[in-house]
Amino acid sequence: MAGSRGRRPGAPDTRAAVLSAARSAFAAKGFRATTIRGVATTAGVDPALVHHYFGTKSDLFLAAMELPVDPRRVIGAVADGPVESAAERFLGAFLSVWDDPAVQPALLTVARSVLEPGGDRLLSQGFLPVVVEPVGELLGLDRPTHRMNLVASQVMGLILMRYVLRVEPLASMPGEMVVATFAPTLQRYLTGDLPPDH
Amino acid sequence: MAGSRGRRPGAPDTRAAVLSAARSAFAAKGFRATTIRGVATTAGVDPALVHHYFGTKSDLFLAAMELPVDPRRVIGAVADGPVESAAERFLGAFLSVWDDPAVQPALLTVARSVLEPGGDRLLSQGFLPVVVEPVGELLGLDRPTHRMNLVASQVMGLILMRYVLRVEPLASMPGEMVVATFAPTLQRYLTGDLPPDH
Repeated sequence: MAGSRGRRPGAPDTRAAVLSAARSAFAAKGFRATTIRGVATTAGVDPALVHHYFGTKSDLFLAAMELPVDPRRVIGAVADGPVESAAERFLGAFLSVWDDPAVQPALLTVARSVLEPGGDRLLSQGFLPVVVEPVGELLGLDRPTHRMNLVASQVMGLILMRYVLRVEPLASMPGEMVVATFAPTLQRYLTGDLPPDH
Repeated sequence: MAGSRGRRPGAPDTRAAVLSAARSAFAAKGFRATTIRGVATTAGVDPALVHHYFGTKSDLFLAAMELPVDPRRVIGAVADGPVESAAERFLGAFLSVWDDPAVQPALLTVARSVLEPGGDRLLSQGFLPVVVEPVGELLGLDRPTHRMNLVASQVMGLILMRYVLRVEPLASMPGEMVVATFAPTLQRYLTGDLPPDH
């Protein structure tokens, strides 16, 4: 599945060592405090090699999470259109990935791992700042971090109910009904009037 | 903390054996398929003793979850008023419990345990049907289960962001701002126009 992201460079052992060191560092320290240099040292390789093989720290983070799709490509499509219908586009893109039976098992594994003890930081100090919050900036929202966190709060609850717990009728609801159910909530979080946050 | 629920009847060993058998049964089989008789057999006691000490199967379930408050008392207050403002009352009651520093640590332990592998069923086949769904019936909602599941999807995301991950600014936001942020979402789920679920 990772093969769909392109070639898997480097000797398999080296690559595995870097990814393992990266996973440990991101989980223990969060995204900001983790350095490519530190990961390289733990893995016993040169930092330039990590850069060369994995790209930026964000790329390394996403490779370490072993996502079956690059979420930035999915979410990037959301910014491509009027902000007034961004919630609908987001939910459409979200469901096209999560409802795909070829991709869903791997996404469920990731979802379960970030919900486990110790997986917290991968979400709060990795996935949210690396993947979710930049969307708010792309859309040109005021208070982009807060608004995207509200979106995340509803989307994580949707993931939990529809895919993890498979609670009916949400679990079997056709995608277009899921979009119609949640789009007004997400659109208000993105562009609606919200109370101050303090 | 459990002492606040009243006397803890029975020999401590017997009580612990019943609760342990109940926890295993609810986690493995869910609420509906678990019987007081089965729990009693596993614990090596008479079913009448389980009834006498713990009450109904719902009472036993809540005792086994070791909640620091009886959620039915908190949520019951929601049904006590006009349905048009039920979301606000619900969020107020929710925050009065979750923002209480004396109660929050125990709630976090429960939240983490139901998010762990194997804890799923405690939520989907225990907490939701025993505690959450009856509120929809109390409020006289059409499609009470579906509407309460939507409420649960947003509230679980709120718990995850504000209390488990402590993502800012949600984590430090004053309670009245949390209510104002989420009440329109929940009120639409309770009484608004929703698309059909199939």
